[in-house]
Amino acid sequence: MDVDKEYFSNITTRERAIFEGAISMGALFHQFVGTPVNKDTKKSLETSMEESLKLQPAIEDVEVEIRFDKLEESMTEFDYTSLTGDMLDVKIHTKVENVKAIIRIEFIEELNYPLMYVEKIED
Amino acid sequence: MDVDKEYFSNITTRERAIFEGAISMGALFHQFVGTPVNKDTKKSLETSMEESLKLQPAIEDVEVEIRFDKLEESMTEFDYTSLTGDMLDVKIHTKVENVKAIIRIEFIEELNYPLMYVEKIED
Amino acid sequence: MDVDKEYFSNITTRERAIFEGAISMGALFHQFVGTPVNKDTKKSLETSMEESLKLQPAIEDVEVEIRFDKLEESMTEFDYTSLTGDMLDVKIHTKVENVKAIIRIEFIEELNYPLMYVEKIED
Amino acid sequence: MDVDKEYFSNITTRERAIFEGAISMGALFHQFVGTPVNKDTKKSLETSMEESLKLQPAIEDVEVEIRFDKLEESMTEFDYTSLTGDMLDVKIHTKVENVKAIIRIEFIEELNYPLMYVEKIED
Repeated sequence: MDVDKEYFSNITTRERAIFEGAISMGALFHQFVGTPVNKDTKKSLETSMEESLKLQPAIEDVEVEIRFDKLEESMTEFDYTSLTGDMLDVKIHTKVENVKAIIRIEFIEELNYPLMYVEKIED
Repeated sequence: MDVDKEYFSNITTRERAIFEGAISMGALFHQFVGTPVNKDTKKSLETSMEESLKLQPAIEDVEVEIRFDKLEESMTEFDYTSLTGDMLDVKIHTKVENVKAIIRIEFIEELNYPLMYVEKIED
Repeated sequence: MDVDKEYFSNITTRERAIFEGAISMGALFHQFVGTPVNKDTKKSLETSMEESLKLQPAIEDVEVEIRFDKLEESMTEFDYTSLTGDMLDVKIHTKVENVKAIIRIEFIEELNYPLMYVEKIED
Repeated sequence: MDVDKEYFSNITTRERAIFEGAISMGALFHQFVGTPVNKDTKKSLETSMEESLKLQPAIEDVEVEIRFDKLEESMTEFDYTSLTGDMLDVKIHTKVENVKAIIRIEFIEELNYPLMYVEKIED
């Protein structure tokens, strides 16, 4: 089966690059939020998030930064906390044919919200 | 802050309708896969998935069908199983200004994969 | 196969009642944390959490209360937020033969931690 | 606050060792099921699961094996799949005072179910 022809001929290459990155960003957030984390395990969790999401269609690269300041803010008596959306600073790079896009999540204080948006798109 | 102007002026209305629906579809899959379910709780889980995801930006409606055939196929000795991607048949309806899109997930046997795609988009 | 004989003859009935409730409490937390929620969808999410977890072995009843005060504290510009551990006040009732236990999670301010413990056990 | 005295004086040391391990096993399953995985990312996902869960109270060690045979069985056209319970072979080691326990999950074909049980407990 030609998946692209069968299922994606109704959208442009730009739209596809946005679509695939957005799926993976929604996936990343809802898969990993809640995971126990502290400063010692931050790195292995970032690596695992990056490698897992890179497997999805059209994903070229994933850069995950768990914000240390937010991590420390929510620290508990038990020396770890649960990963929350405000700790996430992530860039997902997609490529579909000649189009490259970067989907970003970052916490926007003014909105009290971890906003997902298209940081860059070029064709 | 004008969020649309600040963060979304680099993409078209069509692209935004696709973007928001794709985020919510990725979110739905990775939030709820793994949930204990059987035929008796199928309805309340579908409702909860629909209502939760409808809260996200630009989501007009969410229709979740947990496939009974796939649910029964994976049934265990304990009369329930864990929700998996192949059980999901979901339509997420988005609306951004005059553009309406439907993002779909359905299991494609030939690919052995729960495919997410843009089922319909009109402006 | 006699599962109880095969796999659980090394622990007491009391221990089994605690074991099964603890599994389900860990499951509930890590399955549902991250779910989009606001005051309008609080009820359907509570119901779905209760019904899903009640399917697991030895679980007699599940009472979920999503704390409205904590929910409102973390509210965003987009009129919903993500479920976090501090919002959870849950009792899981287990029964194994003549032993009944209640496993509880509640947020303890002094620890800044959603503590899981055995609230009551009787035989 | 003396958490142990305040919240755990109603259960024995053995019961506490079982309780904490069971919570972490339920957590591990429901946090990570659904994660994209293939043979190339298996190792980083196992490491992240181990390190994350080791942070929880009373957990001494966590050994995660994602079963390669089950992983390959569910492989898709896109060269990755979603982590499912049948792929999990995990031992969580807990220690509370002089008591050591091992909580295990393994897929039991006869039950078509990933069973969690107390593999070993000694005091």
